[in-house]
Amino acid sequence: MIPTITAFERSPDGGRGLARDMQVRWALEEVGQACDVRLVSFGGMKQPAHVAISPFGNIPTYEEGNLALFESGAIVFHIAERHAGLLPDDANARARAIAWMFAAFSTVEPPILERTTAVILERDAPWHDERLPLVDDRIRKRLAELSRRLGDSEWLDGAFSAGDLVMVGVLRRLNRSGLLNEFPNLAAYVARGEARPAFKRAFDAQLAVAMAGSNG
Amino acid sequence: MIPTITAFERSPDGGRGLARDMQVRWALEEVGQACDVRLVSFGGMKQPAHVAISPFGNIPTYEEGNLALFESGAIVFHIAERHAGLLPDDANARARAIAWMFAAFSTVEPPILERTTAVILERDAPWHDERLPLVDDRIRKRLAELSRRLGDSEWLDGAFSAGDLVMVGVLRRLNRSGLLNEFPNLAAYVARGEARPAFKRAFDAQLAVAMAGSNG
Repeated sequence: MIPTITAFERSPDGGRGLARDMQVRWALEEVGQACDVRLVSFGGMKQPAHVAISPFGNIPTYEEGNLALFESGAIVFHIAERHAGLLPDDANARARAIAWMFAAFSTVEPPILERTTAVILERDAPWHDERLPLVDDRIRKRLAELSRRLGDSEWLDGAFSAGDLVMVGVLRRLNRSGLLNEFPNLAAYVARGEARPAFKRAFDAQLAVAMAGSNG
Repeated sequence: MIPTITAFERSPDGGRGLARDMQVRWALEEVGQACDVRLVSFGGMKQPAHVAISPFGNIPTYEEGNLALFESGAIVFHIAERHAGLLPDDANARARAIAWMFAAFSTVEPPILERTTAVILERDAPWHDERLPLVDDRIRKRLAELSRRLGDSEWLDGAFSAGDLVMVGVLRRLNRSGLLNEFPNLAAYVARGEARPAFKRAFDAQLAVAMAGSNG
């Protein structure tokens, strides 16, 4: 059975692969599972049919037979549980890979989201220029801790896992900030993720949607 | 084998049960699993022995034989996978419960953390009074979506699950803000969580640590 995911009809990032369908596409490519993609407009995301699946009116969703899922992290985990290649077989290593998934969303991403909010929603606020460095310092604290743990390793804990996939996805949100370059091993880690053939296929697929939208 | 978790030697919340060991204690109580608790000082959390287990220098951690885990969400999930009572048996319902876990951390908590940051780290900033209502509105948006989904249901998706446990934990961070009371069904949902005997046992256990610390 081929699952159906949803993605933005017109992604606000213009095809930079920062929308949250990217990690789901990437996970599906890693495990070799095809999918259908249903594009949703900003208006459509707030309609009852979409909200019934996605309570917060977001993309992506994932539908497969009687299962309808929301939250990119949960969808990546669902894919990782049902296919080989994204979670280690060893029970303890598997639990640690899942810990990195939660760490990406719970600990690393919040200050990064705060930066996105500041730049998009508070750009014209009188405090913007003075406050942004404070937010950046909170991001640096997390990046420094992550950098220290990664060290010279290729991935966070042994072989590439769903934990790396979502962590790279979170860190890519910093691409234009310059902050990643302050931590060369993290910049190289993200580049390793982006160099994976599965990442490239997923990236090209979401870019094709953006390009079609810009011609439409 | 009895697992060992870590908790603050002196929790900054003074025993209100807002530190992240609370959800792990609660999950262990729900499934009837005893644990040992090792208290860690703020200095100790930054020491190599702790950081080796907890890369971001946080509590709680979870040690059981050869397994050492960090991230409260991952620990709750680990407990839920290995004991009955926190995840449904039906595969699709299980996937949806896990989606609520990710939603709690990825979608509901970030604006709540932004509020905590504003109140603690930016209280004296010249923009504090003008900016806080903007943060509160971002929280309200998520609460409104969650309230709409919950409706008159007792829990988010059928029986009480690990998804409810972490969502209640996230919402409890708003207890002093007054925001929860704007959504009576969410306030009642949190109260139902807090009324569970397992919650009360976990709450009392963390409160006993705070009380001992304040007498020390």
